[in-house]
Amino acid sequence: MANSKYEYVKSFEQPDILLQNVWIVVRIDGRSFHKFTTKHDYAKPNDDRGLSLMNRAALEVCKEFPDIVIAFGESDEYSFVLKKSCNLFERRSSKISSSIVSYFTSQFVYRWKEYFGDHELKYPPTFDSRCVLYPTDENIKDYLSWRQADTHINNLYNTCYWALVLKAGKTPIEAENELRGTFSDGKNEMLFSRFNINYNNLPAEYRKGSVIFKKMVQETNEENGVTKSKKRLIIEHVDIISEKFWKEYPDILGSK
Amino acid sequence: MANSKYEYVKSFEQPDILLQNVWIVVRIDGRSFHKFTTKHDYAKPNDDRGLSLMNRAALEVCKEFPDIVIAFGESDEYSFVLKKSCNLFERRSSKISSSIVSYFTSQFVYRWKEYFGDHELKYPPTFDSRCVLYPTDENIKDYLSWRQADTHINNLYNTCYWALVLKAGKTPIEAENELRGTFSDGKNEMLFSRFNINYNNLPAEYRKGSVIFKKMVQETNEENGVTKSKKRLIIEHVDIISEKFWKEYPDILGSK
Amino acid sequence: MANSKYEYVKSFEQPDILLQNVWIVVRIDGRSFHKFTTKHDYAKPNDDRGLSLMNRAALEVCKEFPDIVIAFGESDEYSFVLKKSCNLFERRSSKISSSIVSYFTSQFVYRWKEYFGDHELKYPPTFDSRCVLYPTDENIKDYLSWRQADTHINNLYNTCYWALVLKAGKTPIEAENELRGTFSDGKNEMLFSRFNINYNNLPAEYRKGSVIFKKMVQETNEENGVTKSKKRLIIEHVDIISEKFWKEYPDILGSK
Amino acid sequence: MANSKYEYVKSFEQPDILLQNVWIVVRIDGRSFHKFTTKHDYAKPNDDRGLSLMNRAALEVCKEFPDIVIAFGESDEYSFVLKKSCNLFERRSSKISSSIVSYFTSQFVYRWKEYFGDHELKYPPTFDSRCVLYPTDENIKDYLSWRQADTHINNLYNTCYWALVLKAGKTPIEAENELRGTFSDGKNEMLFSRFNINYNNLPAEYRKGSVIFKKMVQETNEENGVTKSKKRLIIEHVDIISEKFWKEYPDILGSK
Repeated sequence: MANSKYEYVKSFEQPDILLQNVWIVVRIDGRSFHKFTTKHDYAKPNDDRGLSLMNRAALEVCKEFPDIVIAFGESDEYSFVLKKSCNLFERRSSKISSSIVSYFTSQFVYRWKEYFGDHELKYPPTFDSRCVLYPTDENIKDYLSWRQADTHINNLYNTCYWALVLKAGKTPIEAENELRGTFSDGKNEMLFSRFNINYNNLPAEYRKGSVIFKKMVQETNEENGVTKSKKRLIIEHVDIISEKFWKEYPDILGSK
Repeated sequence: MANSKYEYVKSFEQPDILLQNVWIVVRIDGRSFHKFTTKHDYAKPNDDRGLSLMNRAALEVCKEFPDIVIAFGESDEYSFVLKKSCNLFERRSSKISSSIVSYFTSQFVYRWKEYFGDHELKYPPTFDSRCVLYPTDENIKDYLSWRQADTHINNLYNTCYWALVLKAGKTPIEAENELRGTFSDGKNEMLFSRFNINYNNLPAEYRKGSVIFKKMVQETNEENGVTKSKKRLIIEHVDIISEKFWKEYPDILGSK
Repeated sequence: MANSKYEYVKSFEQPDILLQNVWIVVRIDGRSFHKFTTKHDYAKPNDDRGLSLMNRAALEVCKEFPDIVIAFGESDEYSFVLKKSCNLFERRSSKISSSIVSYFTSQFVYRWKEYFGDHELKYPPTFDSRCVLYPTDENIKDYLSWRQADTHINNLYNTCYWALVLKAGKTPIEAENELRGTFSDGKNEMLFSRFNINYNNLPAEYRKGSVIFKKMVQETNEENGVTKSKKRLIIEHVDIISEKFWKEYPDILGSK
Repeated sequence: MANSKYEYVKSFEQPDILLQNVWIVVRIDGRSFHKFTTKHDYAKPNDDRGLSLMNRAALEVCKEFPDIVIAFGESDEYSFVLKKSCNLFERRSSKISSSIVSYFTSQFVYRWKEYFGDHELKYPPTFDSRCVLYPTDENIKDYLSWRQADTHINNLYNTCYWALVLKAGKTPIEAENELRGTFSDGKNEMLFSRFNINYNNLPAEYRKGSVIFKKMVQETNEENGVTKSKKRLIIEHVDIISEKFWKEYPDILGSK
């Protein structure tokens, strides 16, 4: 049963090397998560257990793939930014994209119990993923701004929607109708005047999403009391649209 | 916080539509599974629990994505063949490839306990995936023959290797040296004369891998005793290199 | 001045190998040929010199690239079909597409005088090109049918349009308005009743375009009078939509 | 003869949009130019008519496609750099690459007589082309340096080779053998001591190739004597490896 007769089929695989020297974003996205969150009784509009599990899975991805310099997550999606000089899997698009989404999913299922306890996982979720390339620092910052602005817009809408449904007893269609055509100001005002919610006091995680990056932290060795600076992966819910963040952490995009 | 300023970044996503009217293979492959199987005490050369879990995850993938007409698995890899007219995700390569590998991984972790019982999963595994296109029926059959011939070659080698290591007390390097340059006949003879193993009597699953496809089966309704023909996904360990299989199940490649 | 310092830039070239075992169409198309034909006083709706020059340039392309099994031309476009097993330039898309369009253009300019005589070429024309893949014989025949049906539709329209403008003295806008919403029957009727043109008696080249392929022809050696069958590239204006053509010349798509 | 039945074949065309916001290089290259230059009695190692014709064709390309910010040519190849914001043909790779190579070829044949006079064009030449992307200014400058360093290396070699063949009466194989393993210094020394050629005094065009870009020039209106600054496309044979050039013409890469 010689294999050589069939090996020609290997030549049908087509190379998918990503362009050199550009930022690589791998964005993963939950498939049918509206149904998934409903079936698993996620709190609305935000479920802390669900967000923490997403963050944890993403953190593990960042540990596993050190070429990731920053990651941003909201709702059921996460974007991982790989450095321009990344040579993981020789920059083969499928390998990078599939390995990251597979490991993320694997972590999500593996750690479900840590975050949801006895609330069991009824069926295994699916995420998809894709690679997108961004040539300049401005482009990659704009990409991340796009996702963070989206977080805000979605969260403001969802906060209103679920207040109308859960607190004001509206049907989903009534809630949608009421929100149609409203602007940011109107939604803020609605939350404050009708539901006594000051939007800006809601947890930053809901409003700004989650940012994972490496930060210099002081760590004291418990045995000998010596304090050292170390780079550690941390999760913060900070503004990455303004330049302040990038000035404070120039190493993120400046890393080689 | 208008998002419109940043939306231009969407234009950096590049289309990856797969050519129409060709077979799509999505092949997934375990990452660092040598380490994974060692850490999880897989029996060598074949672990029935591990193979069954792979088959189960693949079966669930076939249920979830009905465009898959046949799947073939061996060791830590599985190939899923999607029909030529498949329009899943408008044939976007990343979406197809990533959704399948994500769901496979998800199932693998979710169902670990069903197959490994108290033997716990120590860390979550990763699979990668890719899409490969095959234009003709001959090409796709040759692809599957390539994988099944590979199964045979690997399994014969591994059966010898592990017999030398586990039964003859050889070191890994001694076993490798002894096998270097041997042919199929020599390996069969070694197994028979030194280890009393008739290779052809080993389970077909080890020698031929696993084939998942839809088969007409007779099902009797327990309540009313009526028997009906139904198409069911089944797993068999049959030869798909010879034409016999394809003549017996012309619907597999003939399906629209 | 060592070059090694800069050679890394070669790694930015991305492979563009075309899928194996599928038909390759290279379609070239005149750029701004409305202006080009006006500036060069092409007869309307069809200029015999212009069509003959297109055919000649295409014939030379077929001679130069023997992997072409059939070519079809109409107006300012030509499609070249390369056999499935074509390995020209290792199937690199850019190389194939650019070499064909460059050689076609080169022939067009080089042979202008042969077809237009003293009517000089005022400026050099441009053609673009692209590769498109077709997996099955049915697909490639449908592609060619698409182009030939297009030839008919365009030519019928143009014949009416120019009759209205040149013979009935209509302005371009009047002619367009008159033709808007008319069907094939109406146009045929218009040509016959108002302009005494029996559309079906117009030259086949106008109505069906030009087909270039290799045909067995009898050739008699003038010196010794011996007659031999030889394959020669010929140009015919035949129907390639009906199966008749393909049955008569099974070698075209059957060629290895 | 409805066309709708066949129009599905359009869906087989695959998008080939180039990534946004990166430099696009279209490099064209003569096919079989060793034979072409021999058949057309090009002077060796450099033919002024041939180089001038290449430059002229390239200049016309730059006029026709104003998105080109700089072009570099040597021997039978030319590289055209399109600005990062270029939206020509919606950045479709095939359209850009094929239109440029077609127009270049067209100009080359069209203007042959201007440069070669009665020395007639015996057969039409072919060029191929490809698109390559460069993300940063450093990358694109390194690309151009790569080509200019290549010009120098080739020209120094060819100058020696043809001196050995034409002046010292060596056979091609003897000349090759003599040059094998020599370095730059050795070649310069050979030219000076054996052939009395000071390499650095050879025309800059041979040593540095040709650079086409837009330069501010003073133009005096002959009628009214008024002098104005205008941007004009010019051809110079200058060093583009050192930073001096880029500092002198910051607009080239700085253009929007």
